[in-house]
Amino acid sequence: MVIVGEKINGTSKRVREAVLARDEEFIRELARRQAEAGAHYLDVNSGTEMGRDADDMVWLVKTVQSEVETPLCIDSPNPQALEAGLEAHQGRALVNSTTAEADRMDLVIGLARKHDARLVALTLDDQGMPSGAEERLTIAKRLAEAAVGAGMSLDDLFIDPLVRAVGIENDQGAAVLEAIGRIREALPEVHIICGLSNISFQMPLRSLLNRTFLAMAMARGLDAAIMDPLDAGLMATVCAGEVLAGRDDMCMGYLQAYRAGKLEQ
Amino acid sequence: MVIVGEKINGTSKRVREAVLARDEEFIRELARRQAEAGAHYLDVNSGTEMGRDADDMVWLVKTVQSEVETPLCIDSPNPQALEAGLEAHQGRALVNSTTAEADRMDLVIGLARKHDARLVALTLDDQGMPSGAEERLTIAKRLAEAAVGAGMSLDDLFIDPLVRAVGIENDQGAAVLEAIGRIREALPEVHIICGLSNISFQMPLRSLLNRTFLAMAMARGLDAAIMDPLDAGLMATVCAGEVLAGRDDMCMGYLQAYRAGKLEQ
Repeated sequence: MVIVGEKINGTSKRVREAVLARDEEFIRELARRQAEAGAHYLDVNSGTEMGRDADDMVWLVKTVQSEVETPLCIDSPNPQALEAGLEAHQGRALVNSTTAEADRMDLVIGLARKHDARLVALTLDDQGMPSGAEERLTIAKRLAEAAVGAGMSLDDLFIDPLVRAVGIENDQGAAVLEAIGRIREALPEVHIICGLSNISFQMPLRSLLNRTFLAMAMARGLDAAIMDPLDAGLMATVCAGEVLAGRDDMCMGYLQAYRAGKLEQ
Repeated sequence: MVIVGEKINGTSKRVREAVLARDEEFIRELARRQAEAGAHYLDVNSGTEMGRDADDMVWLVKTVQSEVETPLCIDSPNPQALEAGLEAHQGRALVNSTTAEADRMDLVIGLARKHDARLVALTLDDQGMPSGAEERLTIAKRLAEAAVGAGMSLDDLFIDPLVRAVGIENDQGAAVLEAIGRIREALPEVHIICGLSNISFQMPLRSLLNRTFLAMAMARGLDAAIMDPLDAGLMATVCAGEVLAGRDDMCMGYLQAYRAGKLEQ
C-alpha cells in the first residue's frame, strides 16, 4: 500500500497561515511526523491564490525536503505551480493531478514525463465528474492510453476514481467500490489511489467510515491512498488489510507493527 | 447483513459446563445479550458427545427460545442432533450445516426441507477442504444445484466458503475474498456467510483482523456472518459497511446506531 500523507494542505487554515508566514518549523514538524508514521509520499498543496502559488509551492518543496527524505506529491490545480514544484523537487515526485480534460491532460502528462515524475490521474473529463462505475472506467482507460502514448510506464500512473460523500449521495460508496474493481480488472498494472476522507464528509464518526471504506476498497484493488498517516486506526487497518490481501509475507509487517505498539488504539 | 451470534457454542468451556449442568440462567443471559446487541439468529451448539448431543440440543433450543424471540441456528456435526433441534424449534430455523460430502448433502438438505428451515452449506466435499477460490466456487455451485433440486429457494441458502487462518496459510485471506467475489457473481441470489474469527486464529489483536476482514468480505459480496455481536468494533464495522455498500437507505441505520451511542469504541 502506497500511503500519501495528506496533512500539508492549504485547505487547512493553520497550514495556509504557515505558508503565508513562511513558518518553516511548523511545516517541518508536520513533514517529520507523517514520515515517521510511515507515509511513502507527502502531499504538498499551498492552497494559495494564482500568482503567488508557484512561489509558495517552491518554498514548501524546499522546506519539506530540508527535513525529510520522503518524496513529495506536488499538488495544485495550477500547472504552473506543478511545474515550479517539480523543478524544485529532488528525486522522483508524484504529480497531483491530471484529469482527462482537454486543456489539462496532455499538458500535465507532459510535465510529469519531462521531470520523470509519477502521476495521479482523476477520472474526470470535460463532461464533469461521473457518478457511475462504467463512466469512471471509460475515463480511466483514456487516461492510461494517453499516459502510455506519452511514454509513461503504467506503474507510474495512479488512477483516482474520485470518492464522493456517501452521506450526500448514498450510492457513491458502492459506485466507487465497483469502479475500483472494474479498473483493477481492466488495467491490472496501474495503481489505484483515492482521497479517502471525502467518503465520510458531513457524517458523524468519520474515522470509522474512513477505515471501513479503506478496507473495502483494498478488497477491490485499491493499492494507494491519500490519507492521514497520523490516524492510528487507519494505519492499523492498512497493516491488517495487507495481511488479508496476501501482500504481507509471513505477516512480518503486521507482527513488527504489533511489537512496536503501532496497532493498539 | 445477517448476523448470527456465535456465543452459545460448546467449544467454549464455560458454555459446555452450562450445558452439562443444565444452567438455564447462564444460557438465557448469553441469548438475551446477543439478541439485544442485534443478532438476527443465535447459533446453538452443545459441543457434547454423540449419544447425548441430541438431548443437549433440545434443551438448548427450549432454553434459548424461552428467553428470546430471535430464531436459532441449529449447529451440530451430527444430523441426529440437527433433527432433534429442528423438531424442538419454534419458527424458521437456520441449519448449520451441510457440506457437499456424499453421506451428508442430501440428508441435511432433506432435513432442512422437511422443517422448512434455511441452510448453511460449507464448500467442502469428499476431497476435503479446498484452498483455492476456483474449487470453492465449483463446490458452491454443486451445493446450490442440490438445494434447488430439493425444492429450496436460493434465498434460503447460505454458502460458507470456509475461512482459514491467515497466520498459518498466508494466502488464505486473498483466496477466500476471491472465492466470495466469484460466488457472488456466479450465484447472485444466495447468501454468503462465514465464520469470521477463524481468519485471525493464532494472531495478535484478533479483533483488528476480524473487523478489517469483515469489511473486505462485505466489499466482495458477503452478506451474513457468524460472529460475536458483543464485539462493539465488529458491530460498528457492520453498520459502516452497510452504508458504504449502499445498503443503508439515507444512512438511517448508521445514524440511529450513532445516536444510540452504539458506534463509539
